[in-house]
Amino acid sequence: MTNLNQDSFDLHKQNKGKIQIESRISVKNKYDLSLVYTPGVAEPCRRIAKDHSLSFDLTWRGRTVAVISDGSAVLGLGNIGPDAALPVMEGKALLMKQFGGVDSVPIVINTQDPFEIIHFVKNIAPSFAGINLEDISAPRCFQIEEELQDIGIPVFHDDQHGTAIVVSAALQNAAKIVGKPYESLNVVVVGAGAAGLAISRMLLGLQCLVDTCSMIPGHKRVKNVIVVDRKGALYSGRENQNIYKEGIASISNIEKRQGTLSKVIVGADAVIGVSGPDAISKEMIQSMAQKSIVFALANPMPEIMPEDAKSAGAYIVASGRSDFANQINNVLAFPGIFQAVIRGRINNITPQMKQIASQTLADLVEKPNVENIIPDPFFPHLADRIADAILKEAI
Amino acid sequence: MTNLNQDSFDLHKQNKGKIQIESRISVKNKYDLSLVYTPGVAEPCRRIAKDHSLSFDLTWRGRTVAVISDGSAVLGLGNIGPDAALPVMEGKALLMKQFGGVDSVPIVINTQDPFEIIHFVKNIAPSFAGINLEDISAPRCFQIEEELQDIGIPVFHDDQHGTAIVVSAALQNAAKIVGKPYESLNVVVVGAGAAGLAISRMLLGLQCLVDTCSMIPGHKRVKNVIVVDRKGALYSGRENQNIYKEGIASISNIEKRQGTLSKVIVGADAVIGVSGPDAISKEMIQSMAQKSIVFALANPMPEIMPEDAKSAGAYIVASGRSDFANQINNVLAFPGIFQAVIRGRINNITPQMKQIASQTLADLVEKPNVENIIPDPFFPHLADRIADAILKEAI
Repeated sequence: MTNLNQDSFDLHKQNKGKIQIESRISVKNKYDLSLVYTPGVAEPCRRIAKDHSLSFDLTWRGRTVAVISDGSAVLGLGNIGPDAALPVMEGKALLMKQFGGVDSVPIVINTQDPFEIIHFVKNIAPSFAGINLEDISAPRCFQIEEELQDIGIPVFHDDQHGTAIVVSAALQNAAKIVGKPYESLNVVVVGAGAAGLAISRMLLGLQCLVDTCSMIPGHKRVKNVIVVDRKGALYSGRENQNIYKEGIASISNIEKRQGTLSKVIVGADAVIGVSGPDAISKEMIQSMAQKSIVFALANPMPEIMPEDAKSAGAYIVASGRSDFANQINNVLAFPGIFQAVIRGRINNITPQMKQIASQTLADLVEKPNVENIIPDPFFPHLADRIADAILKEAI
Repeated sequence: MTNLNQDSFDLHKQNKGKIQIESRISVKNKYDLSLVYTPGVAEPCRRIAKDHSLSFDLTWRGRTVAVISDGSAVLGLGNIGPDAALPVMEGKALLMKQFGGVDSVPIVINTQDPFEIIHFVKNIAPSFAGINLEDISAPRCFQIEEELQDIGIPVFHDDQHGTAIVVSAALQNAAKIVGKPYESLNVVVVGAGAAGLAISRMLLGLQCLVDTCSMIPGHKRVKNVIVVDRKGALYSGRENQNIYKEGIASISNIEKRQGTLSKVIVGADAVIGVSGPDAISKEMIQSMAQKSIVFALANPMPEIMPEDAKSAGAYIVASGRSDFANQINNVLAFPGIFQAVIRGRINNITPQMKQIASQTLADLVEKPNVENIIPDPFFPHLADRIADAILKEAI
């Protein structure tokens, strides 16, 4: 880890960051200048003023999204603020380009007030084809995303939906390997933040945020989910539970079990950690059902290190990190999602599209095994395959 | 003009805009991924959280500025809104890179409320090394820029200061050619918007915005300026004159002349048009002093076409366009200004720096003549020369 940290620091310092702006047009003489700038540039301006959709065709807008964060929930590092979050956002932009062919701009903002963030995103919308919200802490992230659903371009909170898409794909394949029907799984989710609640919603096939609302048509759902936060299991009617937690509680934890993680994990088929380091112990894993599935996804330090989970008897282990097998990471989803946004000029990423992205991801692993439940980020044309599937659905 | 318009439209459409994002680091394997993204990326995040200045060293922030507009005063097209302004902002970003080697991101925003714009810029500040405000109408632009002077990174309203820097350089050289001392010039400025007031302030050597305040030390100033708006000449005490116009009026128009442009232009040595098409007539030019200087800078259509100004007797004619001699255009200034911001990590662009930029620009023309009062945008290392001079002053 020390070498990795030093190598990463050096790489960032030597390259002064990870992305840059390039010209698509070489301006070699005064005529070129008069085309890209005044007076010629007035013509695309006039055309867009008459037909606003042309801003997607005549500028980089149609190819470019923004990756926006307030730095309030960065990796497992917590609320480190906007400038310290910038390396992550720039990393996203690098991967968006390299894996998805999508241009994106990392933007970190100097406010953590939900209303200011909503205003900010609404105000910046005419510059981009889509917005990837990133590392914004719960429950603000839910409110922010809800308020931004009809601004004309899609707003996608990656920590919620990207994570949920990849986790549900991995869990489908893990279920095949352990020989248990996906629909029979009892799942414990550790962490009731953005990722925890979104994963739970997707595993349960819910379309909406606050209450049970409707199920996604045709969605395969797991039997039961218990979500655990710092105070223990969520259950309907628990005290001091925000509306988002209450919404999930009302449809999950069907037996209304109460108590700490070590209590409710007993007998579970799968545990999904999206909280922080050391949240899951070896003893907990030993108490799970046979052929247990352990996803320890906190970054950079997982809830339990993969080797420890294995030695405690976990049958399938996954983490969020590139340096272990079974990397469950949003990088498998967001480049394809936003490629679809760009190619299809989609103005809303529906629950159906998310489900299709997840199914596509799962199906790309032809023969799942304990060390291979989810495609590698370097799987050829991964983003293209996801975008193709989404666009087929969208049309 | 028709061909130019069609060529520009086609170029924008074929290229889908003018800039793009490029990776600086090729991610070839899982170890690379673990350096640029999780878990390695946590290290630069942690370092920046401890020392905020490192965000300039470890991310693209230190090399990148934002070009921000609300689309309220775009070229001579007026208030065409944010998306229609995007081709201009993207053009600026292209030229920033090509001429200055500076990365920049075009951002157009969905509000024209000054307080929201101020909030927006403050909020986005941690993402960038500097802010180029662009095409924001007066008098809002003055208020916005004033409120943003201490946000830790420089905020430069190009329509004001970029234009003023280039105009005062060109006017210095024009004065040499016509054999009149710069300090003796009587100048009429047509237009009391962002550019008109900023040019007037710079020609008069004023440091501040609202009142006469102090003169820039060592600044060569012209003898007199008369600023004309739609209601005629500004003079101290005129009715319905906003504080910014009143501020200029109190130090300019020393004879308190009143009336229309055609009245106050009589006998002037130079006229500088920063208003709109057809604001200056041949008759007006005929009424000026001998060896008159005519800068008709509105874009895309100037106040008088250069050939008409010449045929009316103007001795030196300049426009803002790339397709005529003597292009007085901000492209001569902003790439160098922002290169200095990047190289020197400057957090404030002072009046002295602007003056130095202007003097450097003037001095680059070794032998000024009627067709060559200002360097060509393709002058080798133009931006580097300006940045070098600014950085010498800054240190």
